Amino acid sequence: MTDIPGAAPLTYAEAGVDIGAQDRALVQVKRLARTTFTRGVLSEIGGFGGLFTLAPDDPRGTVLVASADGVGTKLKVAQMAGIHHTVGEDLVNHCVNDILVQGARPLFFLDYFASGRLDEGVAVAVIEGLARGCRANGCALLGGETAEMPGFYQPGEYDIAGFIVGSCRRDALLSSAAVAAGDVLVALPATGLHTNGYSLARRVLFEVLGLGVHDRIPELGVSVAEALLAAHPSYLARVAGLLDDGLVVSAAHITGGGIPDNLPRALPSSLGAEILVDSWQEPALFDLIRKAGRVCEAEMRRTFNLGVGMILVVHPTNCDEVVRRLGEDAWVIGRVSAETGIRFLGERRG
Amino acid sequence: MTDIPGAAPLTYAEAGVDIGAQDRALVQVKRLARTTFTRGVLSEIGGFGGLFTLAPDDPRGTVLVASADGVGTKLKVAQMAGIHHTVGEDLVNHCVNDILVQGARPLFFLDYFASGRLDEGVAVAVIEGLARGCRANGCALLGGETAEMPGFYQPGEYDIAGFIVGSCRRDALLSSAAVAAGDVLVALPATGLHTNGYSLARRVLFEVLGLGVHDRIPELGVSVAEALLAAHPSYLARVAGLLDDGLVVSAAHITGGGIPDNLPRALPSSLGAEILVDSWQEPALFDLIRKAGRVCEAEMRRTFNLGVGMILVVHPTNCDEVVRRLGEDAWVIGRVSAETGIRFLGERRG
Repeated sequence: MTDIPGAAPLTYAEAGVDIGAQDRALVQVKRLARTTFTRGVLSEIGGFGGLFTLAPDDPRGTVLVASADGVGTKLKVAQMAGIHHTVGEDLVNHCVNDILVQGARPLFFLDYFASGRLDEGVAVAVIEGLARGCRANGCALLGGETAEMPGFYQPGEYDIAGFIVGSCRRDALLSSAAVAAGDVLVALPATGLHTNGYSLARRVLFEVLGLGVHDRIPELGVSVAEALLAAHPSYLARVAGLLDDGLVVSAAHITGGGIPDNLPRALPSSLGAEILVDSWQEPALFDLIRKAGRVCEAEMRRTFNLGVGMILVVHPTNCDEVVRRLGEDAWVIGRVSAETGIRFLGERRG
Repeated sequence: MTDIPGAAPLTYAEAGVDIGAQDRALVQVKRLARTTFTRGVLSEIGGFGGLFTLAPDDPRGTVLVASADGVGTKLKVAQMAGIHHTVGEDLVNHCVNDILVQGARPLFFLDYFASGRLDEGVAVAVIEGLARGCRANGCALLGGETAEMPGFYQPGEYDIAGFIVGSCRRDALLSSAAVAAGDVLVALPATGLHTNGYSLARRVLFEVLGLGVHDRIPELGVSVAEALLAAHPSYLARVAGLLDDGLVVSAAHITGGGIPDNLPRALPSSLGAEILVDSWQEPALFDLIRKAGRVCEAEMRRTFNLGVGMILVVHPTNCDEVVRRLGEDAWVIGRVSAETGIRFLGERRG
């Protein structure tokens, strides 16, 4: 039912999100940010988290790792469905994962909540989700800003942003510089779209397929709201022990830009990676979007996580232990190659 | 010209901002946040900045002081005027002041920039302002998130939030607990509305008075855009030396809620303050809004800074030195009293 012959293939840009424009703006932002750098800064803008040390001369000193994020238009789905208590957890977990792939554990979190007219019930439901996410990650909700901005947001709509600060001993930071050709890529599964690709997913489900937010999707056996609001998980509990034992070299959180844009952030620029496309079974939601939107494969890969939530770069001798300790839903998704670029090998399952 | 007899008096709530609802939500947020607190947390939610220590057992250890803020509907004025390079500086300076009143110097800053469709030129202009503000405060722009959310923001509109982390030695934190009755309140002047009260100000200037954003305000000799977009200043450079020398006991950044809501945050709950209303001359913009909007005095005080940007609580023996070192635009605005509550004494000048 979901393939509509003759309809034009959809792209993320046509759904209103221009990753190219974002990349061009990022070049300028990096240049401007560099003019502000002080001695404590250990990172360029564009990593998963920014690195700042309080002790620039101490090679084992504490490094603060900070990240800012939003939930994107997953919020629109939450607002359509009137379900406000999960997006806070999405936001916290997104932030936690962004600093986890640098080797950091969360210390504290602050939020920004903005709406046109403050609805106390909605705001408190959102903050409940934030607090639940913070507790689950051992992260303190230290503060925040609740902004009431008449005329900026439609009735019933709000935006949220999150800011996290974690810490890591400087010599325990994960680093792309330590990655070598032949290192193994171990993947952890996504639970859904997480917090990326929602403008394209909404376009396909609500406009192309004409579904309502509470309609059941026969192929998935759940409602649109359930499918799209599945929580972005935190990988902290699963990965922390591996970090403690020095079993992870580098890692990538697969968010906006998918594997093609995020995995390279975990690799030195001189190396690339091969991804074995037949090594995992995509959740059915992605193929529904692919077929109904006639979305080409390159666009799918750059817009969605396709079922891959996080990729750990592991030395070959540690691979078996890492996969065993992560459990049976973790898998070897590929390897680091001496050639630059990300190559997708093989055919998708199913 | 500006007093319109017969028009109903305006309030901030009628302009769309319900500080009462915000206060009620804050009670819930505090309760929820408390459930997340870890050993490192040294503060309740609701201070100017949240306090987190990496060394809970060290009375002289480094405390991280963090704050999240927005610019509110000052953004609307910037967007109406097409002036995007100043709001970033407003945001940074607002954040810097929020942690300064706890005794902290800025370390780093992250931003969240959200729009419906990314306009690279506008985004880069905003980030230029952020970077300029960061450089001026010796604060690194360490990262950020640029969100493109189709359908969430009107064409040409965007929202920004900022997140700052600073540090202070634990035994050098400013604290309301150290304040005593008889302590002197020293004020530093505001340069304009800073980042608060814009929904009411816009209502009065654009709707009641029917002015355009580029129209000249005869009473002020500047355009509406110039009057409303005057930058929120950083008080760091003026106050840092006084902090170094232990001359400041406690301090309040006068933001949303004005003196009545912000000064008590710098005082113990057992004490109050007397404010000498005739000790300063309000900038003319406030009286223009007061008269044209027929805004009552209590509403003016709780909505606007009324020309008071920051209040330092100073021991009487240090008062002369503090005022001398701050320069001639600083003044004694009142004193801490044994009675609780903020009392405004005397008549406004002019």
